[in-house]
Amino acid sequence: MTGKIHPVILCGGGGTRLWPQSRRSYPKQFSTLIGENSLLHNTLTRFSGAGYHPPMMLTHEDFRFIVGEQLAQAGIADGRIIIEPQARNTAPAIAAAAMLLRNTPEAIMLVAPSDHLTDRAGFDQAVNAALPAVRDGKIVCFGVEPDHAATGYGYIETAGNGAIKQFVEKPAQEVADRMFASSCYLWNAGVFLFRVDTILAAFATHAPDILPYVSGAVEGATRDLDFLRLGASFADAPDISFDYAVMERAQNRHVVPIAGHWNDLGSWKTIWQESPRDANGVTGDGVAIDCSDTLLSNAGGQTQIVGIGLNNIAVVATADAVLVTDLDQTQKVGDAVRLMRKAGIAQADAFAREYRPWGWFETISKSGRYHVKRILVKPGGRLSLQSHKHRSEHWVIVQGVAQVTVGKTTKDVQQNQSLYVPLGAVHRLENTTRDDLVIIEVQVGDYLEEDDIVRYDDIYDRN
Amino acid sequence: MTGKIHPVILCGGGGTRLWPQSRRSYPKQFSTLIGENSLLHNTLTRFSGAGYHPPMMLTHEDFRFIVGEQLAQAGIADGRIIIEPQARNTAPAIAAAAMLLRNTPEAIMLVAPSDHLTDRAGFDQAVNAALPAVRDGKIVCFGVEPDHAATGYGYIETAGNGAIKQFVEKPAQEVADRMFASSCYLWNAGVFLFRVDTILAAFATHAPDILPYVSGAVEGATRDLDFLRLGASFADAPDISFDYAVMERAQNRHVVPIAGHWNDLGSWKTIWQESPRDANGVTGDGVAIDCSDTLLSNAGGQTQIVGIGLNNIAVVATADAVLVTDLDQTQKVGDAVRLMRKAGIAQADAFAREYRPWGWFETISKSGRYHVKRILVKPGGRLSLQSHKHRSEHWVIVQGVAQVTVGKTTKDVQQNQSLYVPLGAVHRLENTTRDDLVIIEVQVGDYLEEDDIVRYDDIYDRN
Repeated sequence: MTGKIHPVILCGGGGTRLWPQSRRSYPKQFSTLIGENSLLHNTLTRFSGAGYHPPMMLTHEDFRFIVGEQLAQAGIADGRIIIEPQARNTAPAIAAAAMLLRNTPEAIMLVAPSDHLTDRAGFDQAVNAALPAVRDGKIVCFGVEPDHAATGYGYIETAGNGAIKQFVEKPAQEVADRMFASSCYLWNAGVFLFRVDTILAAFATHAPDILPYVSGAVEGATRDLDFLRLGASFADAPDISFDYAVMERAQNRHVVPIAGHWNDLGSWKTIWQESPRDANGVTGDGVAIDCSDTLLSNAGGQTQIVGIGLNNIAVVATADAVLVTDLDQTQKVGDAVRLMRKAGIAQADAFAREYRPWGWFETISKSGRYHVKRILVKPGGRLSLQSHKHRSEHWVIVQGVAQVTVGKTTKDVQQNQSLYVPLGAVHRLENTTRDDLVIIEVQVGDYLEEDDIVRYDDIYDRN
Repeated sequence: MTGKIHPVILCGGGGTRLWPQSRRSYPKQFSTLIGENSLLHNTLTRFSGAGYHPPMMLTHEDFRFIVGEQLAQAGIADGRIIIEPQARNTAPAIAAAAMLLRNTPEAIMLVAPSDHLTDRAGFDQAVNAALPAVRDGKIVCFGVEPDHAATGYGYIETAGNGAIKQFVEKPAQEVADRMFASSCYLWNAGVFLFRVDTILAAFATHAPDILPYVSGAVEGATRDLDFLRLGASFADAPDISFDYAVMERAQNRHVVPIAGHWNDLGSWKTIWQESPRDANGVTGDGVAIDCSDTLLSNAGGQTQIVGIGLNNIAVVATADAVLVTDLDQTQKVGDAVRLMRKAGIAQADAFAREYRPWGWFETISKSGRYHVKRILVKPGGRLSLQSHKHRSEHWVIVQGVAQVTVGKTTKDVQQNQSLYVPLGAVHRLENTTRDDLVIIEVQVGDYLEEDDIVRYDDIYDRN
C-alpha cells in the first residue's frame, strides 16, 4: 500500500473556445456549463474522499481567489493553491507539483485538468486498475474508447498490455476516420498517474532544461495569505506540454483505458452534444420554432432567446454578449475573441461581473456622469482602506449588515440604510457577519474608472 | 386652390413582426430602426412644412404620451392627438378624422401610416400630381412600382389614366411573379388623399354601418389634458380596413404612382434589405466571421454580437431579448410572440424601459429584497403625489436637480445628493428645470411591484 493519492488539479487555463461564457477573466473551468456545479467543482468532488489527500491546485495569479472560493463551495478545507507567476503550459506545472512533494518520493500523484466531463465510477475503476503499474514505476496516462471519429482530440496508439506505440496530435478527418475504424486508438484524456520519484526521474532524463527553473521557483516560493506563490524563475521555464516533454519520450509510459463517458467540453458543439436534446436535436432555454440541431444557451437566464428556422446553430447569450455560430465552425470562436481583443472590445476578456477576494461587483448602469454597481461582500470580506480623487459614492445597503469606516468613524449600517462617502474621504467596507452583504453603490464624479483608487491598507495584499 | 393639406397619421398599431425591437408597449413606429430618428419622426417630417396643416395623430390610449413626446422632438407644437378608446382598424379611424374636419368639407386629408420608409421628393411629387383628381372628388391611393415579386404587400391593378381595376391582397409567390412580370400592378402604399366631403359621402354610401358609431364617438369626445379622447361608441364600430370598407367599392377611386423608394419595414428581412450591406450581404453591428446575407442588429448597443458561419440569418439583440431567425422565416416572429405571451414571458410585450407621461424608468437590478431603477424625469415632468405600503425608497440624484416633496416639506435636491423616502411617507418627485433629471432609485421592501402605489394627486389624471 502506498496510501492516499495526491490530486494535482491544473486550473490556470484561460481558454476562449467557449466565449462568451468562458473569458480570460473567468474561464470555463469555473463556470456552470452543464448541470448544477462548475467543472472545477465536479473535478474536486471526483478526486476527494477516502482514497485522496486534499488537492493541490495550480493556477494563475488572477484566479487565486476564485479557486479558493470554489474549494470552499466544494467543502474542501485544506486544498493547497499554488500560484504560477506566468502560465507555462503543463510540463513546468507538473514538475513544480512533483518538486513540492519531493519529500515523499513514493507518494502517488494524479494530475488532471479541471474542465473535463467524465463519469466518476469509470474513472475510479481506471485509477484502481492503474495503481499496480504506478507502484511499479510506470507513468500512466488514461485513454478513452472513441465513440466517433473526433478531430478535436489527441489519440494514443496502443500496442497491447498497456504499451503505447505513439501519441497522435489532433488529426485531420481522414486520419481520425482511420483511427476510429481501428481498435488500437484511444482518446488522450490528459490525466496522468505516477509516483513522485518516477516523474522527477523522467523530467531529469527527458526534460532536464525544465528542472532548474522549476526547482528555483519552488525554492523561492513565498507564502501569500493562503497561497503559495512560485518564485519568479518559473517564468523562464520552457513553455511546453507534459505530453511533448515527457510522455512522447519516456520508455516507462503506460496507458489504462477509462470505461464510460468522457468529453473535454472544448467547443460549443461538444456542449450541444453533451446536453439533453429533444427529438429535433434542440436543447437549451428559449423559444424554438422549426429549429433542428440547435443549442440555445442562456447563461444566467437574463435574456429571452427566440430561434426560428435554425439548423446546426448555437446561440449563446450572456448579460453582455451574444454568439451565434454554425455548429461546425465553432473552432473560429477563438478568432472572434482575438478580433475583439484587437478592437479593444471589453467583452473579449472581461465580464460585467468582476471577482475580487472579498466577493464581486458588477456594473448595472453607467454613463459619463455616474456609475451604478451591485456589490456583494462575502462573510468576512473586507475591501481595502481607500479613497478616490474624482468621485463620491452613495451606498444603499439592500441585504445584510455593513461595517463601514469613513474617516475616523466606524459603524454598522443596516439593511435599508444608506451612507455617503464624500470625494477624497478615506473609507472601508467590511462584512463581519456570517451572511452575504449586498450594497448598491452609486458613484458620481467626473472620472469613474477602477484606477481612481488610492489604497492605504489591504488584507489581500493588493497594490 | 384648396389650401393646405391635413395630414392624418395612423400611429396606434402594435405590430409584433419586428420583435424584440417592436413590442406592444413600444411598437415599431416609435423606434429607430434605420437611420437616426424614429419612423414616426420621419413621417411627421415628411408631412410638415409650407403645404401642410399641423398633423392629426390617431393612436391608442397607451401611446398617447409617446406620440406627444415624438411630436415635441420633431418640433411640431400644434399637432392634435386623437385617442381611440379601442383599436378598430383603419376605416373607423379615418372616418373619425374626417368627421372632426367636417366643418371644412372642401379641406384635403392625407392619410398615412406612421411606420413606412419612403423618399420625400418622390412623395411630394406624387401628392402634387394627385391634387387635381382630389379636387375633382376622387379618392386617391398611391402605388409603388414593384422592384421584385413581393408576397408581403397588397397590389393595385391599374387600368390606365389612374383607373383601378382591382385590389389584390398579399399574393402567393406564383401570383406575385405573374403580377411583377406584368406592367399593370403597383404595390399599395396604404396612403390616401381626398377631400373631407368626398370621403364622408363615400362612407355614407359604402360603409353606412360605421358612421353612427364614429359620429357618436366624435360627439361624445372629451378633452383630456392635451388629448382628444373619442367617445365610447367608437369601440362598437366594425373592425374593418379602409381598403375593404371603401376602396374596394368606390367608383371614384384613383391611383397615382409614387416614384422612388418605398418599403413597409414589415419584417426583419425588409430591414436587412433596407440596410447598407457589405459585399457579402452582411449588415449591422458586431463581429461577423465567414457570414453572408446576415443582419446583426444591436439595438441600443448594450451587447456584443458575434456571428460565425451564418447565412441568410438575422440576429437581433436588445437589452433583454435575442432573436435569431432564418431571413426567409421572419413571418413566424409573430407566432413566437404569441407563444411567449401564453407562457407569461414579460419580453413578449413589455420592455425593460417603461414610458410614462413624465419621462421613463427602467429596472437595472432586481431581487426579492430590492429593486433598482434608473428614472428620467423630463423638464416639467411631475410624478404623482404617492405613497407605498411595502417599500422604502432611496433616491440618488445623478444628473440635474430634483424638486422633492416628502410629507409636508418640499425642497430642491442637487446632483450628488440623496434622499430617503420612508415606508408610508407621502412623496412626489418633480423636475422644474429645463434639463433632464436622472435619479437612481433603490427600493427596499417585502413587496416591490408597480401596483404598490397610492396616488393622491396626478397632473396626468391617472388612477
